[in-house]
Amino acid sequence: MKLQLSTWPEVEAYLERSQGIVIPIGSTEQHGPTGLIGTDAICPETIAGGMSEAGILVAPTISYGMAQHHLGFPGSVSLRPTTLLAVIGDVVRSLACQGFRKFYFLNGHGGNIATVQAAFSELWAEDSLAARASAVDLRLANWFMGPRVVELSRELYADAEGQHATPSEISLTWHAYPEQVRRLPLAPERAPTGRIQDARSFRRQFPDGRCGSEPARAELEHGHRLYEAALTDALDDYRRFLEMSVG
Amino acid sequence: MKLQLSTWPEVEAYLERSQGIVIPIGSTEQHGPTGLIGTDAICPETIAGGMSEAGILVAPTISYGMAQHHLGFPGSVSLRPTTLLAVIGDVVRSLACQGFRKFYFLNGHGGNIATVQAAFSELWAEDSLAARASAVDLRLANWFMGPRVVELSRELYADAEGQHATPSEISLTWHAYPEQVRRLPLAPERAPTGRIQDARSFRRQFPDGRCGSEPARAELEHGHRLYEAALTDALDDYRRFLEMSVG
Amino acid sequence: MKLQLSTWPEVEAYLERSQGIVIPIGSTEQHGPTGLIGTDAICPETIAGGMSEAGILVAPTISYGMAQHHLGFPGSVSLRPTTLLAVIGDVVRSLACQGFRKFYFLNGHGGNIATVQAAFSELWAEDSLAARASAVDLRLANWFMGPRVVELSRELYADAEGQHATPSEISLTWHAYPEQVRRLPLAPERAPTGRIQDARSFRRQFPDGRCGSEPARAELEHGHRLYEAALTDALDDYRRFLEMSVG
Amino acid sequence: MKLQLSTWPEVEAYLERSQGIVIPIGSTEQHGPTGLIGTDAICPETIAGGMSEAGILVAPTISYGMAQHHLGFPGSVSLRPTTLLAVIGDVVRSLACQGFRKFYFLNGHGGNIATVQAAFSELWAEDSLAARASAVDLRLANWFMGPRVVELSRELYADAEGQHATPSEISLTWHAYPEQVRRLPLAPERAPTGRIQDARSFRRQFPDGRCGSEPARAELEHGHRLYEAALTDALDDYRRFLEMSVG
Amino acid sequence: MKLQLSTWPEVEAYLERSQGIVIPIGSTEQHGPTGLIGTDAICPETIAGGMSEAGILVAPTISYGMAQHHLGFPGSVSLRPTTLLAVIGDVVRSLACQGFRKFYFLNGHGGNIATVQAAFSELWAEDSLAARASAVDLRLANWFMGPRVVELSRELYADAEGQHATPSEISLTWHAYPEQVRRLPLAPERAPTGRIQDARSFRRQFPDGRCGSEPARAELEHGHRLYEAALTDALDDYRRFLEMSVG
Amino acid sequence: MKLQLSTWPEVEAYLERSQGIVIPIGSTEQHGPTGLIGTDAICPETIAGGMSEAGILVAPTISYGMAQHHLGFPGSVSLRPTTLLAVIGDVVRSLACQGFRKFYFLNGHGGNIATVQAAFSELWAEDSLAARASAVDLRLANWFMGPRVVELSRELYADAEGQHATPSEISLTWHAYPEQVRRLPLAPERAPTGRIQDARSFRRQFPDGRCGSEPARAELEHGHRLYEAALTDALDDYRRFLEMSVG
Repeated sequence: MKLQLSTWPEVEAYLERSQGIVIPIGSTEQHGPTGLIGTDAICPETIAGGMSEAGILVAPTISYGMAQHHLGFPGSVSLRPTTLLAVIGDVVRSLACQGFRKFYFLNGHGGNIATVQAAFSELWAEDSLAARASAVDLRLANWFMGPRVVELSRELYADAEGQHATPSEISLTWHAYPEQVRRLPLAPERAPTGRIQDARSFRRQFPDGRCGSEPARAELEHGHRLYEAALTDALDDYRRFLEMSVG
Repeated sequence: MKLQLSTWPEVEAYLERSQGIVIPIGSTEQHGPTGLIGTDAICPETIAGGMSEAGILVAPTISYGMAQHHLGFPGSVSLRPTTLLAVIGDVVRSLACQGFRKFYFLNGHGGNIATVQAAFSELWAEDSLAARASAVDLRLANWFMGPRVVELSRELYADAEGQHATPSEISLTWHAYPEQVRRLPLAPERAPTGRIQDARSFRRQFPDGRCGSEPARAELEHGHRLYEAALTDALDDYRRFLEMSVG
Repeated sequence: MKLQLSTWPEVEAYLERSQGIVIPIGSTEQHGPTGLIGTDAICPETIAGGMSEAGILVAPTISYGMAQHHLGFPGSVSLRPTTLLAVIGDVVRSLACQGFRKFYFLNGHGGNIATVQAAFSELWAEDSLAARASAVDLRLANWFMGPRVVELSRELYADAEGQHATPSEISLTWHAYPEQVRRLPLAPERAPTGRIQDARSFRRQFPDGRCGSEPARAELEHGHRLYEAALTDALDDYRRFLEMSVG
Repeated sequence: MKLQLSTWPEVEAYLERSQGIVIPIGSTEQHGPTGLIGTDAICPETIAGGMSEAGILVAPTISYGMAQHHLGFPGSVSLRPTTLLAVIGDVVRSLACQGFRKFYFLNGHGGNIATVQAAFSELWAEDSLAARASAVDLRLANWFMGPRVVELSRELYADAEGQHATPSEISLTWHAYPEQVRRLPLAPERAPTGRIQDARSFRRQFPDGRCGSEPARAELEHGHRLYEAALTDALDDYRRFLEMSVG
Repeated sequence: MKLQLSTWPEVEAYLERSQGIVIPIGSTEQHGPTGLIGTDAICPETIAGGMSEAGILVAPTISYGMAQHHLGFPGSVSLRPTTLLAVIGDVVRSLACQGFRKFYFLNGHGGNIATVQAAFSELWAEDSLAARASAVDLRLANWFMGPRVVELSRELYADAEGQHATPSEISLTWHAYPEQVRRLPLAPERAPTGRIQDARSFRRQFPDGRCGSEPARAELEHGHRLYEAALTDALDDYRRFLEMSVG
Repeated sequence: MKLQLSTWPEVEAYLERSQGIVIPIGSTEQHGPTGLIGTDAICPETIAGGMSEAGILVAPTISYGMAQHHLGFPGSVSLRPTTLLAVIGDVVRSLACQGFRKFYFLNGHGGNIATVQAAFSELWAEDSLAARASAVDLRLANWFMGPRVVELSRELYADAEGQHATPSEISLTWHAYPEQVRRLPLAPERAPTGRIQDARSFRRQFPDGRCGSEPARAELEHGHRLYEAALTDALDDYRRFLEMSVG
C-alpha cells in the first residue's frame, strides 16, 4: 500500500489496523562512472515497494539527503543537515497528528545516518523538554546493514564491496531498472579508500567517485537475490519494531 | 534524461550542452474520496517524464509540499514554509555550484506557489544583499495553468473543474497509473467552495476533501489528452525560459 | 482608531466590540525617478488611516517588505522572506494572545504577496500540526486589486498603469503628501517590461526603476479619487471578512 | 530628508555627501492608562523628524520591538529577540550594499537595548568570523539618555520620572500629537517599582502598566522643551558618530 | 554542591529544599599579553566554586560567549548571539522540566550582558505569547559589578582598572591559578580606550588586546581579597534572588 | 597547553608550530545512582589534560551535549541537536579564522556522535556548496572506543561494561576526582538493556538510569589504568590525524 497511490479514506481504514508507516530515505549523488545518481533512493524505494505489497503503508521517498562531499561531481544534490532535520520533523509531526505512531525510515545512504539520528533526537527533545511522553516511535533501518544482505554481499563480493558505489547497491538498482545496466572499464579495478571531508577533498581522493569498491562485479542476477534478502530483512525488522512499545 | 537514472559523467556531458534542469514539485495530500494522495506530485512527475524523453534533464520530484490545511485528513503530509524554503535553497545551490543556471520548477500544487516564490526571493536576496549578480535563473511553472491545459480543462469540465481534487488532475493521474482508477458515488456531486485557513476549518468546510470540483467527471481518456496538452505547454514554456538571459 | 495613538484601556474596550485589526504592510523601495521610496507603505497606511476614522483599529505599518530585486537602487531596503515570516508570526501571536481573532493585512506591494501568504501557512501549520483549531483568521488584501481601484485605474491610465511605479500609486502618495509632487521628464515615456530576478538583473532591465508604467500621468486629483475608491474597497472587504467564521 | 519621502536619485546624490543614516526604533506597547501605545516609536520618530530637517537621511521607523513583558495588556505587540536580530540585520545589509556605512539607531525603548546590541554583534560577527574588515559602523542611541534630556527630566520630575510610562516620554508624545493629551486620575499617584520577567508577572506587579512613574506630571509645554533637548542631544551625538572611523 | 560532581538522586534531594541553581557563564577570549584567555570563565567559575561550598548547586560553566571583537587575536572563540540564545534556552528548559525555578547566571564578561538579557526575553516571550505564566525566574549577575568588588577595585586600581584585561580580573585568575602569574613589561602602561566594533577595528585600536587597563598592577594578594568580596556579593545577591517570587 | 590558561601571544607562537587543537566534548547527564552527572565531560577533559601536558593545545570543554533521553532524571541538561550544530560551527569558524586547521573533538558521550558528525557536514557543506576547498579538517574521537581502552575495559568488565554509567567511565572519573568515589548497593546488579527514545520512555525502561552496566565494579585503580590507556590511544590517534592532509 503506497501512500501516494491511496486515498484518505483508505489511509483512515489502514490506521485502524496499524499505526506504522515506512518512509524510504535516500540521496541524489554520484555513484561512480556506472552507478546511477539515484542509487541511494532507488534501493530503499524498491525494497519498500515490496513491503507495500505486504500491506504495509509506504510514504513517498525522501530523495534528497546528506551528500555535501559529492557536490564536486555534477548531478549530486545535498541538503544541509539542518534542512533534513526540518524535513524529517515536519513529515513525522504531520502523520503523528493523524494517529501514526511507528515511523520506520528505510535508508539507502550511510551518509544520512548521523543526521537522521539527530533528527530523531530533535523530535524527542521537544517532548522531553516539555516533560511529556512522546507519542511517536522512530527507527532508522539501513537496508545494506540487514543480516541477510550483509551475508549475501560478503559471499558475492567480499572486500570488493567497498564503501561507496558498491556492487551490492548497483546490482539492486539493476533489479529495479534492468534497462539501466551500464558496463564500463574502471581503472583501477578497486577504487581507493580514504576519508570523507568536503567536496574538493573527496574528488581529489576519489577521482571517479567510487570508494573502495569494485562495482564492475555487479550483476543483474545478484540484484534479484539482494532484493529478496533485503526485503526479508526489512519485513522482519519492521515487524519487530511494531511490537516494541511506543514512547 | 532523468537525473536519478543518469551517471555523473553523463550529467557532466549534459552540462556542456545545457545548463537547464527541471525539478518537479508536488505535495502529499488528500484529494477527496477517489483522488490519490500523491496526485500533486504524480502530475508534474509524469509531465516531466515526457520532458525527460525529449532530452531535458529532470531531477527527482520534491514530493512533500505546503499542505497544512489538509492535515485533518489521514495521509496528508506538510512541510512548513520555512522548511520548503530551505529545501529549495539547498537543491538550487547544490546544482548551481556545478554549473546549472536555469532551474525550472514544474509544480503540481496551487498551495506551493507562494512558498516557492518566497524561496526564489530568499535565494536571490543572498546575491542582491551581497551586491553581486546571481548566477541562477529560477522559474515556477504550474502545469494546470498552461494555456493548452486550461483550454482543454474548460472544454471538458467547465465549472466542474473546481479548485481541489479536480477532474483534470485526477484524469492525469489515471493516465499515469491506469490501474488506479477509482469510482465512488460522491455527494454532493459538486463539492462546496470556501476559504483556506487551518486544517480544522478546512475539514469542516470541505467534509470529503474536495473543493468546488466534480472529480467523478474524470476519465482515463481525458488523462491522455491532458497529458499531451500539459507536455506541449511545458516544453514550450521551458524552451522560452532557456532563451531568457540569466541573472 | 490607531493602535499607536490609543491606550491599553481603550484597546481593551475595543476588544469587547470587535476582535478585528488592520495591519498595513508595505515596502521601502525605489519607485522610479519621481516616485517616493515609501510609496508601498504610504498607500496602505493612508487607506488604513481612513479605516481608522471609521472606528476600526489599525496597527502601525510594517514598512519594510520584500524588495531584494530593488536593492540595486539606493535607498531600497529588503527583509529576507524568512525574516518577514518571523515578523508577521510575532505580530499575530502577540495580538492573538489578547483576544484578537481577525487580522487584515492591507498590502501595498505586489512583491509581498507570496511571502505574506507563506507566513499565514506557517502560522496555521502550527495549529494544524498540533491537531488543534486555530484561533485566528488571516486575510491579505491588496489595495491595488480592489474592484473600484482597478476600474478607476483602468479608466485613468489603461495600459500606462504598468507594474511598478504606477501612476495610480504615485497619485495616491500625492494625495497623502501633496507637497511631494515631483515631475521630471522620463524617457522612454513608457517603461520597459521584463522579469523579476535578482537586483543586478532588475537594474539592467529597468534602468530607471519603473516597470511598464508611465508615472508621469499621475495627478494629485487622481490621488483623491483613488483614495476614495480604495477606502470603499477596503471597508467593504474588511466587513465581509469580519462576517466570516474564524478557524 | 526622510527616506520614505525621497526618490532613489535623491538618495544616490545624498550618498555622495554622506554615508550615514538614522533609523528610529521603538516599540508598540502599553504605556499606562494615559500613555499612547505607540509612545516608544513616536518619540524617536519625532526627534528623527527634526534630524531629517537638518538634512540627515532618516529611514522609516521600526515600530515593533521587545515588549514580551507588556503582552498582558491589550494592544501590546512584541517581536521575539531572534526576529528583531533578523530585521536589523536585513535593514543594515540592504543599505550597506548601496554604500551606507554609518547606521545610527535612535531608540525609544529601554527594553530594546540588549537585543539591538546583540544584533550589532551578530552583524559584526559575520565579518569577524570571515576575518575581513567590516564595512559598517553601528550605533545605538537612546534619546532618553542624552545629557540634555536627562538633565531636563531630572529638573522637571526628579524621582517621579520612573521607569516606564514616564512623564518625559508622555510629554514628548504630546509635543508630537497635541490632540492626544489624556488626563485621568491615577492611583497610586506614583506607580510601584519591581522586576521585569514575563507578561503575567509584569501585570501582577504593575496593575495599570506604569512602573515607578507619575505620568500625570506630563505637560505639553514640557514636551516642547524635551523635544528641543532631545534633538540637540541627537544632532550632537550623530555628528560625533560620523566623525569616528568605520570598521 | 557542583552539578557535575553530583548524582541524580543527590540533585533530586536538593530540589526538595531549593529550586535554585547557579550557572557560571564566561568567554574564551584574549586578555592582553599577560591575561589568560579563559579569564572571563575562570572568574565566575571560581566564585561559583565558593557558592557551591555553601551548599548551592552550581552547573558546569558555559565557557564560550560573545567575543566576536576579539577574534583577531589567536585563541579567541566566539559564539554568535543567536547561538548563545539557543544554548541558554536549552539549559534553562532542561532544568525547568525537572522543577528548577530560579536560574542565577553568574557572568564574567561584559560583552555577554546584552545577549544573555535577550536570551531571557526569548525564554519569557514563549510564555507571554502563549498567555501563560512563566515557571522560571532568571537573573544575570556580573561579578565585577557587585558592590564590594567595585569598591575594592576602585580602592586598589582607581582608573587603572580600565575596561578589558583589568587588574581585578587578572588578580582573581591568579587567586584561582597561582601558578599562572605572568609579568611582562606593557607599553604603554595604560592601554588606550576606544569603541567596540568588529575584530579588525578592535585589533587596530587595541594592539595588544587591553582596553584602558593597567593589568601590570594585578597582585595575587589582591586576587584573594577580590575573591572574598565577590563571593560575599554573590551570596548576598543570590539569597535576595531566591526570596523574590517567581513568574 | 590549555587554551584557557594561555595568553594570545602564546597561542600565536603555538600556531607557528601546529595548526591543531583538541576540543573535549561531553554531556551533563545522570549516570545512575553512583555516577557523576558530569561523567561524560570529565572523562574527555581529563584525558585532554594529559594531551595538554604533551604540548598539545586543548580548548575549554563543551560540557553540554545531547541528553534529551536523560531529562527525566534531575540534573540532566540537554542541548537540542540544532543548538549543538550551531555551537560547534561557531567554535570551529572562530579558530579557523586565526589559522587553526585540525580540529580534534575528543568525545565522552555516545549520544553526541550523530550530532557532532552532522555538525561536521554542516560546516563542510558551506564550503562544498560554495565550490571552494575547505580550510579545516575535523575529527571526532570517542575515548571509550580507542583500542587500548576497549581491550582493557573488556579485560576488566567484559559484559558488565554495559552501555551507560559503565564501570569504565566511572573508574575514570574517580581517577580524576578520587574524593568522589561513591559506593551504593545497586539492584539489580546488572542494569537492564533497552532502546533509547524520549525521556519518559528512558526512565521507565531504566529506572535508576543505568543501561546494561554494573558500575559497582568500578575501582579507582582501574581508573588510573584506563586513563593511561585512553591517553595513549588519544595521543596516537591525534598524531595520525595531524599527518593527514587537510581539505
